[in-house]
Amino acid sequence: MASDQLSATFAALADPTRRAILSRLTSGEASVTELAEPFDMSLPAVTKHLKVLQRAGLISQSREAQWRPCKLRARPMREAAEWMEPYRRHWEQRFDRLDDFLREITRKDGAATSRKKK
Amino acid sequence: MASDQLSATFAALADPTRRAILSRLTSGEASVTELAEPFDMSLPAVTKHLKVLQRAGLISQSREAQWRPCKLRARPMREAAEWMEPYRRHWEQRFDRLDDFLREITRKDGAATSRKKK
Repeated sequence: MASDQLSATFAALADPTRRAILSRLTSGEASVTELAEPFDMSLPAVTKHLKVLQRAGLISQSREAQWRPCKLRARPMREAAEWMEPYRRHWEQRFDRLDDFLREITRKDGAATSRKKK
Repeated sequence: MASDQLSATFAALADPTRRAILSRLTSGEASVTELAEPFDMSLPAVTKHLKVLQRAGLISQSREAQWRPCKLRARPMREAAEWMEPYRRHWEQRFDRLDDFLREITRKDGAATSRKKK
């Protein structure tokens, strides 16, 4: 179910270590040992995080190569970003309104200054 | 801390009821009773979800009006979407590669067809 997939994606992203692992994988495949390296964490703890990411479909682990590299899978993240799109319009509108407001007070301020000069 | 804010945002989004509440709020402010209406859920259960959204900064509740309307706050969602941007490049590249591949096989297929015709 799409809704459950979204929940799984967002739950998987709700952890800084998991986000750091995904970030590392944007620059290419990596083994579990390589992924564990930057963290002050046991290998089993890292493996647990990888399993969460795998269950959410955000990464996959090759069964073919002996070093079993992990790699990013694009789809769940794309769907999560698509879910966010309507909100993008919301915050962009907010910035547009702020922009209009700033333009308006700058205009008024300019008018006041030129009135003072007269 | 930015990282904790992101975790709080994603954790808050990892629930279909909370996402539905946010979706409702894109069309304007609403009272708790209005937000609870579409759900087969007790008011305290809905209030609990609203508290998670509020703690993550995704919504705010006015203290002034007597009906205490809830409204969307844009910033945390914007930051979450910004965090996703590098991954957008990743999946768009994947689509580009798929596109190149499809173009390539179409081209080869076209060449084979015209050879057969000769």
